Amino acid sequence: MGAREYARGRRVVARLRHGGDLLEEIAAVADAHGMQAAELRAIGALTSARLAFYDQSTHQYGEFAVEEPVELVGLLGNISRKDGATFVHAHATLAGHDGACLGGHVAPGCPIFACELVLQELVGEALERTFDEVTGLGLWRDL
Amino acid sequence: MGAREYARGRRVVARLRHGGDLLEEIAAVADAHGMQAAELRAIGALTSARLAFYDQSTHQYGEFAVEEPVELVGLLGNISRKDGATFVHAHATLAGHDGACLGGHVAPGCPIFACELVLQELVGEALERTFDEVTGLGLWRDL
Amino acid sequence: MGAREYARGRRVVARLRHGGDLLEEIAAVADAHGMQAAELRAIGALTSARLAFYDQSTHQYGEFAVEEPVELVGLLGNISRKDGATFVHAHATLAGHDGACLGGHVAPGCPIFACELVLQELVGEALERTFDEVTGLGLWRDL
Repeated sequence: MGAREYARGRRVVARLRHGGDLLEEIAAVADAHGMQAAELRAIGALTSARLAFYDQSTHQYGEFAVEEPVELVGLLGNISRKDGATFVHAHATLAGHDGACLGGHVAPGCPIFACELVLQELVGEALERTFDEVTGLGLWRDL
Repeated sequence: MGAREYARGRRVVARLRHGGDLLEEIAAVADAHGMQAAELRAIGALTSARLAFYDQSTHQYGEFAVEEPVELVGLLGNISRKDGATFVHAHATLAGHDGACLGGHVAPGCPIFACELVLQELVGEALERTFDEVTGLGLWRDL
Repeated sequence: MGAREYARGRRVVARLRHGGDLLEEIAAVADAHGMQAAELRAIGALTSARLAFYDQSTHQYGEFAVEEPVELVGLLGNISRKDGATFVHAHATLAGHDGACLGGHVAPGCPIFACELVLQELVGEALERTFDEVTGLGLWRDL
């Protein structure tokens, strides 16, 4: 376990672009405001989606598609750095017309119908991802 | 895409009224503190619920009822202004006794069993909803 | 309904210990930083899980086990005091390999595969839980 205090930076409220890709649009907001690290939260709706599940044995992500419009019931995650670039890590809960939920790690391929996003910047030591041998994931270094 | 910085205002922690309606009680806390815009997060339990799914083709919400007690696994959303009044936009994930989840846009008709709410005020330019022709939704103007 | 303003304290970002128990690790971060009250948010993955559903009639929690690896799609909750000790109240949405979701009140017995946590301290009057006769739950006193 590692933990570190971060000072609060700016808080940005965004209305994401209809038709844009969820991960790309979030990264674009962070980049436009020069945020290196942030927490993120959002609600909205997607035209379709791609989520992923991480296989803890094989250390590989398996993706699955959601081929219909869904409510973005909740999106939680963060922005940090990976390989020198802005990296968005987000998990989503989605719901169909009858409320049935699907959830997972957000993959590229989630076209936005509408999305209300809040980014809360974290100011402090660099929050950088590096390969973690135990889990096979890109986890925060020195934390 | 539009994005804007907001200064942090007050942070209010609330224990919502047993038997009250979820959306009404949240609006009452915001109004009691004179908050025009805020982020909201909550967990708790509901005696029953009404959620909605937005049909992206017909531009109409379809509501459905959840006729039994549920955990309020997560509530995410925001408070802004619509037609001059306080407007609560919230999405909920609910779970029954076996953990099965239902999610969607929160509609009137969610009696509270217990609910722990946090409102984080957003201070800055007015966050107002207006009709968006592309989606048929009330989205934030000038954002 | 009761509501109270809290000043913002420190913000701590943590990478929780692989193999640790979710509730214990969160409490350990709060204790290590001497936080008496906080909001919490997290995403990650668990090796297995135990969730609970509160029966609103009998006033008893019923627990159920999730006997396989799951994504921790979203964790929302708070830290306050109960019987003089740090008390973590958290609700989780979990998803399996096909995205199917299970949700509920987080019980002891959730081994962490990986978890990214943010704690936002709440500074102000003590946030203490006491027995509430109406619901049978430990709810915040004087709120």
